Amino acid sequence: MDVQERPTLWVAKIGGAIMDMPDALQRFLKTFSALNGPRVLVHGGGKQATDLAERMGISVKMVKGRRITDREMLDVVTMVYGGLVNKTIVARLNGLGTPAVGLTGADNQLILAHRRPPTPIDFGFVGDIDRVNHTFLYHLLEQKITPVIAPLTVTAEGQLLNTNADTIATEVAIALTQSFTVHLVLCLDRPGVLQNAADPDSAIPVLSFADYQQLKYQGHIHSGMIPKLDNAFRALNLGVREVRVCHFNQFAAVTEGQPAGTQLKR
Amino acid sequence: MDVQERPTLWVAKIGGAIMDMPDALQRFLKTFSALNGPRVLVHGGGKQATDLAERMGISVKMVKGRRITDREMLDVVTMVYGGLVNKTIVARLNGLGTPAVGLTGADNQLILAHRRPPTPIDFGFVGDIDRVNHTFLYHLLEQKITPVIAPLTVTAEGQLLNTNADTIATEVAIALTQSFTVHLVLCLDRPGVLQNAADPDSAIPVLSFADYQQLKYQGHIHSGMIPKLDNAFRALNLGVREVRVCHFNQFAAVTEGQPAGTQLKR
Repeated sequence: MDVQERPTLWVAKIGGAIMDMPDALQRFLKTFSALNGPRVLVHGGGKQATDLAERMGISVKMVKGRRITDREMLDVVTMVYGGLVNKTIVARLNGLGTPAVGLTGADNQLILAHRRPPTPIDFGFVGDIDRVNHTFLYHLLEQKITPVIAPLTVTAEGQLLNTNADTIATEVAIALTQSFTVHLVLCLDRPGVLQNAADPDSAIPVLSFADYQQLKYQGHIHSGMIPKLDNAFRALNLGVREVRVCHFNQFAAVTEGQPAGTQLKR
Repeated sequence: MDVQERPTLWVAKIGGAIMDMPDALQRFLKTFSALNGPRVLVHGGGKQATDLAERMGISVKMVKGRRITDREMLDVVTMVYGGLVNKTIVARLNGLGTPAVGLTGADNQLILAHRRPPTPIDFGFVGDIDRVNHTFLYHLLEQKITPVIAPLTVTAEGQLLNTNADTIATEVAIALTQSFTVHLVLCLDRPGVLQNAADPDSAIPVLSFADYQQLKYQGHIHSGMIPKLDNAFRALNLGVREVRVCHFNQFAAVTEGQPAGTQLKR
């Protein structure tokens, strides 16, 4: 017996790279703004955070491609993610006629997290997600307000934490499957998952979990792409209808149902 | 014939000074959190913005006690007001059990403004308020969510602008008189409007508009206090029930109906 199809909802994630490309950003936001129906935007800002830290004379500590968030760096990411990047996007979207509200995980405890245990590596003020406030998101979407989410979370006691933007996009997408048919689009500055990182023409059109495991084993997929794809397959396994990894310039094509970037398959 | 009394709503404004006093801030937020019924918090952050600008090597330009907001300074205040100060307060309030959402004027076009004309002084990206989105605030308050508002506004086209926090508090208070009996409390690091700026015991318990004009004429009230009081009397004239100027430590006493700080009278 068929149940009624839930309405379609797009969750798009953009990284920090696009924030330094005003024309590309405006094109992306126009496409995002022109979508029909409910949508959520999650953004990063790591590049801008690094730039600000350097300008402030704060040294950026990284372990295995992940930022160590000490107290000073937490202030930096709170300013850059929650302030500069988030509010710039929000102001633009509203200017394009899309009512949008900028949120962090702290707002109405949208994303509750706990601080990651300090062993084996102490990442500092970094949060692992416990719960997404689906009701709050749903109320906003019902009022036709588009949530724009910065990669910050919060503990129940009120401590802000830094959390990876791909992880936020994944958990938000999964939470929204309660009410929507969710399509998750992870936008990069590359045209999808590449067979050969040096060749932008080597994007894999369809990537199954088995293929992913093999390419990872062979070393073709490595570093930052691994947590991204682990997240993405988790979304697919937990009810997200479609997960696409693509260049931010391909977002329009993806939302029009065209083949573009890499489509993940269970 | 009596109309039914509208529910009481508190609008409190705190400046940047308290943000550098963790204990005082926590005490204030506990009092604010313990209030019954709907409330709105507006905050500044000028001191923190100046600190960040200095650390970034950006020179702060002031004319007549007002900041000139060039493009770099706009980024600084967007980071500090919209990010660091706003999200720190929001995280804390939620931690104290008060569901709170941090907003700028850009979020769902909460506060639409236009850029101040460049003559006689070009203040840069500074906004004069056109309209407060009362409906959006009302919906949040109805859901028992406390808005925490940063002093940023936006043009209809999506340009962020810097706007004085006292002005924001005043215009928000006035807009909310449509639905509430509004009490506006402007919290300072001084116990109200002082007869003699050098003497903290000289707070004026009740200040009428006529007295204000005279004290201003005599030079007892001057500089930054003048735009603050002009705003405050405007609120009183446009339907705000009570306006109090007090030390942030006096906020509890004010909300308990005790005489504290300076009460304005038409």
